[in-house]
Amino acid sequence: MKSALLAINNKRLLDTLSVSSSIGATENGGLHRLALSSEDKQMRDRFSDWLKEAGLKKRVDDFGNIYGRREGRDPAAPPVVTGSHLDTQPNGGKYDGVLGVLTALEAVKTMNDHNIETERPIEIVNFTNEEGARFEPPMLGSAGITKNLTKDEIYNIEDRNGITFLSALQETGYQGDEENRLKNPGYFIELHIEQGPVMEENNIQIGVVEGIQGMTWLNVVVEGSSDHAGPTPMGMRHDALAAAAKMISCAEEISSEYDGLTTTVGKLQLHPNVINVIPGKVEFSIDVRHFNDEVRKQAIDVLRERLSTIAATRGVKIITSNFWNIDAITFSSEIRNSIEASAYDFGYSTMPVISGAGHDSKHMHEVTETGMIFLPSINGKSHCEEELTLDEDIEKGANVLLHTLLKLAGKTER
Amino acid sequence: MKSALLAINNKRLLDTLSVSSSIGATENGGLHRLALSSEDKQMRDRFSDWLKEAGLKKRVDDFGNIYGRREGRDPAAPPVVTGSHLDTQPNGGKYDGVLGVLTALEAVKTMNDHNIETERPIEIVNFTNEEGARFEPPMLGSAGITKNLTKDEIYNIEDRNGITFLSALQETGYQGDEENRLKNPGYFIELHIEQGPVMEENNIQIGVVEGIQGMTWLNVVVEGSSDHAGPTPMGMRHDALAAAAKMISCAEEISSEYDGLTTTVGKLQLHPNVINVIPGKVEFSIDVRHFNDEVRKQAIDVLRERLSTIAATRGVKIITSNFWNIDAITFSSEIRNSIEASAYDFGYSTMPVISGAGHDSKHMHEVTETGMIFLPSINGKSHCEEELTLDEDIEKGANVLLHTLLKLAGKTER
Repeated sequence: MKSALLAINNKRLLDTLSVSSSIGATENGGLHRLALSSEDKQMRDRFSDWLKEAGLKKRVDDFGNIYGRREGRDPAAPPVVTGSHLDTQPNGGKYDGVLGVLTALEAVKTMNDHNIETERPIEIVNFTNEEGARFEPPMLGSAGITKNLTKDEIYNIEDRNGITFLSALQETGYQGDEENRLKNPGYFIELHIEQGPVMEENNIQIGVVEGIQGMTWLNVVVEGSSDHAGPTPMGMRHDALAAAAKMISCAEEISSEYDGLTTTVGKLQLHPNVINVIPGKVEFSIDVRHFNDEVRKQAIDVLRERLSTIAATRGVKIITSNFWNIDAITFSSEIRNSIEASAYDFGYSTMPVISGAGHDSKHMHEVTETGMIFLPSINGKSHCEEELTLDEDIEKGANVLLHTLLKLAGKTER
Repeated sequence: MKSALLAINNKRLLDTLSVSSSIGATENGGLHRLALSSEDKQMRDRFSDWLKEAGLKKRVDDFGNIYGRREGRDPAAPPVVTGSHLDTQPNGGKYDGVLGVLTALEAVKTMNDHNIETERPIEIVNFTNEEGARFEPPMLGSAGITKNLTKDEIYNIEDRNGITFLSALQETGYQGDEENRLKNPGYFIELHIEQGPVMEENNIQIGVVEGIQGMTWLNVVVEGSSDHAGPTPMGMRHDALAAAAKMISCAEEISSEYDGLTTTVGKLQLHPNVINVIPGKVEFSIDVRHFNDEVRKQAIDVLRERLSTIAATRGVKIITSNFWNIDAITFSSEIRNSIEASAYDFGYSTMPVISGAGHDSKHMHEVTETGMIFLPSINGKSHCEEELTLDEDIEKGANVLLHTLLKLAGKTER
């Protein structure tokens, strides 16, 4: 008789989720747990306890990344690494990142319950500052260990209040040793919410992520002339915000010219920001994404030219800088196949999806075989308090993660 | 032989201006002296000394307005009041408001020099929070004494940091008595910079202000949906900033449909204001001005309708409120004639001008005969560090103010 499939304990998993949901909870059911804040510290402390309770060996590296290692039969074998991040957006959701860490923990607990030994070690990871909401750019913890950014670069990044990453890291007590960084990973797998509406619309339970869109962040500074709103005739103005408004519309409209292109102006500051003063300066960001790097680059060239034309027409100065780029990537076919096979064993529906958002997996892909499991986001919502992934979908995702880990790590009964 | 015209001492006047320019000085030659800030307190202290040195009797009322009274031959006669304000915009200029107070002081000193007695008393005034940059709406000191706002309303207004007007007033030590408010003024005259380019373009030295444009401040709140920038397809977005950009363009463009209409979006906040999150909410102001109240009101009705249409088209909510209105006013013909005649005696060129900006004179007009003298603003600049009025124009303005005061107060040699 074929034995029942090994399954995670969803009640136990949801209990940990419920604890996480209480640390930095917002009024409307979301989470506000910025990287290296006091809430993040509180969550890290709890997570550290959980690692210990699960019998894992904890390490913290010099970027504050926290690892929990479950030894394999062959301690020298490159480990299978899994996890995500516990920080959130300002007034963000309870699932983004958190599920990737907590399902990993639950998968390991399930292995413990059943005395399962794996050939390779398994390591759980919580990466620091994935969101980039406090320290820009995002994904600093994974950028550090994959050497996409140097230690100095990361340590010196300041938040809006001028606090450096280093000083926030020290404040939390999570500045560990460089020698604790992840070494020689064999695989990296990250479970995450889709953050888009596609899976829900197609009634799909497990997303097998094919890759991640390429992304560029532009910074645009428009400089006009700050004059009194009353006595300055309309024809003599060089209004930086009026010019920026045309540019924002232009950035939005160009997306319709390239199939699959997304453009977002998410951040904007104006100076002096007073009702009766014509804005002299406006600074804003444009987030541009596409799964084809060439298309993205071409669209950006066209966009920059159009923004310059708007500036020239209106007699304002413009400085546009391209301050962060990540090329599109394609994930490991071995991992995709493992995810697909694990879902198939449970009878869960699957579909291939492309991630529109960046993830730590983007950096990890550069140093090891990497893959992602997506779970449906209700109404496609994320980075907001309404973010929701259903309990039953979380259970399915954790089961698929468990079996994918077992396949990659090589399961043996103890 | 006809005696030379009585003239002010411009060196002495510019010396006081130079002291004022050092209190709250910015790096680029401007002033940052927000109402009831520590810089404002420092300026008030100095101004109080000056009143004393000029032999004036100082009073402070319950809104922090500071008066200096020069007695008349008939102490019971309604006084001729003159002055303006010593607060500035953030990174504002050195002349806006300040010149009205300092030329008034110099005029009185000149009367003292020449032992001139006037029939009516003369009172100099520094009004609190004219700019409205810290506490909105502007012109609070004059609004208080003219009962356009109640004491409770004014005291409870909060700045951006949640500090009330009352607590800032107490912090500076300038909370005086209600009984010290201006009583029964006979005339109010205010010298001010034009804050626009018209006089300079016409090479005119003295502006005889006919009146002030009507003004409305609208507050617009646009509510969309805050989603992740990457995975949310363009067609499924309800981007509050993309909608606001169209509205800002619409507000700008409507000005071309009504001759003399100005529209300005000077203040804007977006939420959550993060690069990779679609803005869920944007709040912005629209400042609308015209010298014809009917035209202004009609333009606002049309504008509000168009903004609602934009919101409906884009599936975002909009709440527009009309939170401050001042109707256009026409100044006293007696004062205009006195200004005109005084300038004529000196051979200064004059022109009638309409003020695009609000001033304390707007409120004072409701309780007494009121008029204004404008001086040229180089390049029409104001509310910015480049604000400039030439020394020789200041001298001419002060001379005209002196003689206008003498005409209105009734001059007699002591």
